[in-house]
Amino acid sequence: MENAENELTRRFAEARPPFAGWLQVELVSVSPDRVEAQIHVAEHLTNRAGGMHGGAIMAFADILGGMAARASLPPLTRTTTIESKTNFLRAIRPNQMAHGVCIPLHRGRTITVWQTTVSDGDLRPAAIVTQTQLNLPAE
Amino acid sequence: MENAENELTRRFAEARPPFAGWLQVELVSVSPDRVEAQIHVAEHLTNRAGGMHGGAIMAFADILGGMAARASLPPLTRTTTIESKTNFLRAIRPNQMAHGVCIPLHRGRTITVWQTTVSDGDLRPAAIVTQTQLNLPAE
Amino acid sequence: MENAENELTRRFAEARPPFAGWLQVELVSVSPDRVEAQIHVAEHLTNRAGGMHGGAIMAFADILGGMAARASLPPLTRTTTIESKTNFLRAIRPNQMAHGVCIPLHRGRTITVWQTTVSDGDLRPAAIVTQTQLNLPAE
Amino acid sequence: MENAENELTRRFAEARPPFAGWLQVELVSVSPDRVEAQIHVAEHLTNRAGGMHGGAIMAFADILGGMAARASLPPLTRTTTIESKTNFLRAIRPNQMAHGVCIPLHRGRTITVWQTTVSDGDLRPAAIVTQTQLNLPAE
Repeated sequence: MENAENELTRRFAEARPPFAGWLQVELVSVSPDRVEAQIHVAEHLTNRAGGMHGGAIMAFADILGGMAARASLPPLTRTTTIESKTNFLRAIRPNQMAHGVCIPLHRGRTITVWQTTVSDGDLRPAAIVTQTQLNLPAE
Repeated sequence: MENAENELTRRFAEARPPFAGWLQVELVSVSPDRVEAQIHVAEHLTNRAGGMHGGAIMAFADILGGMAARASLPPLTRTTTIESKTNFLRAIRPNQMAHGVCIPLHRGRTITVWQTTVSDGDLRPAAIVTQTQLNLPAE
Repeated sequence: MENAENELTRRFAEARPPFAGWLQVELVSVSPDRVEAQIHVAEHLTNRAGGMHGGAIMAFADILGGMAARASLPPLTRTTTIESKTNFLRAIRPNQMAHGVCIPLHRGRTITVWQTTVSDGDLRPAAIVTQTQLNLPAE
Repeated sequence: MENAENELTRRFAEARPPFAGWLQVELVSVSPDRVEAQIHVAEHLTNRAGGMHGGAIMAFADILGGMAARASLPPLTRTTTIESKTNFLRAIRPNQMAHGVCIPLHRGRTITVWQTTVSDGDLRPAAIVTQTQLNLPAE
């Protein structure tokens, strides 16, 4: 990892939203072109079948998408999520690390589109999340 | 609320997924045609702007959608979420109750479609979540 | 139908996009709160199973969504579709009229969200389309 | 292109749905792992702004998605589209060829997920379509 990316990752980890801290999302790296993170699939994140709850998967992915959108923001702008779409492909077993990688599909001036792939501990894709962000002037 | 609905609500509250307990989702009522719940927007559910995190909104809605799909299941079947789509309409301020209501859009034998509206403390719609469930033979 | 709505419907029918004319979409009524239209499911709109092609259903719904967004535009603005999500619920048999009704789910200053229900000849819902529009200054 | 792919492409072109013929979609190649096609953006496919109508883009992409799902079907099964999600990234100018490429994101036994990228004449991505197919026993 280059120094600039190191620095960006540190800044994003410090300024993470409270919800990301509560979920114990671990930021691996942040750059304008890619955000990577992981999360331990503890028992409290599971569904009745014992796998990672779909809501927890979407929450984890949304944190990555928000950070990625923010890492690409022009000066004096902020970003808000307009919509998010998840396809669930596979269950994630508990007591392992789930991985997430977010990349841009499109970066327009006003609208950006991001795709986050959440994988299980064997790095098999378990969910694909596509979300749209709206860039607005900073308040 | 009728007695049968009372009984169903009690059963679902007892058998809620661990993730629903951890988020402190409060089940209001469960029937095959409608699931209602609420959640306190505590500080740990917020984003950097101080509102309810989009990921927390989706997690909350997903819990309702899963319960609604389960409340409509034929005997000896189980259900899994295939995909979920959220439109975000409005921020939800912290330190209030967010409300969720899930109703069926479609109940086929194999595929069911559900719509959950998450509203803020003044019952203004803040997010609309549409999700698809696949019904499978019980394991 | 009131006179104002009559007049709006006539104006929208005259200014319909070329693609709507080619598909032979018949506009029933246009108001800022609701757009209704129908289309004959001719053989050239069908799939290999003989029903209305999913692509034709989405094209029909998109025409309604675009008109509805336009009917609600503030002066000196234009609108563009950011994203569209369709759930398919039921096949539409050929040689009947398919019906579409579009209503707003949300009308913000910048973002509007619309829901179009496409029904078969017996008015049974066959597809539900949710789409997001971005309002921009007129060029 | 290998001979087997040549043969598959020819078979799919012959058995294309009526709607694909009407839209004049030109199949470039079909294999279980990739379907490619193009379409001329004639005036009758345009919107009021003169670009390719969003409904025409979705119709074009849906034809590719359906063919791709069919090219991957196990024997004695058929496939139906459950849902489709489109992100629009860029306008497609008229009087050029639009290109579409569909690849699998996931191929389970029951559920498959496909992603189609529609590009303009300069091969710049203009829309990304993700759709879910349900595999059923052949009738």
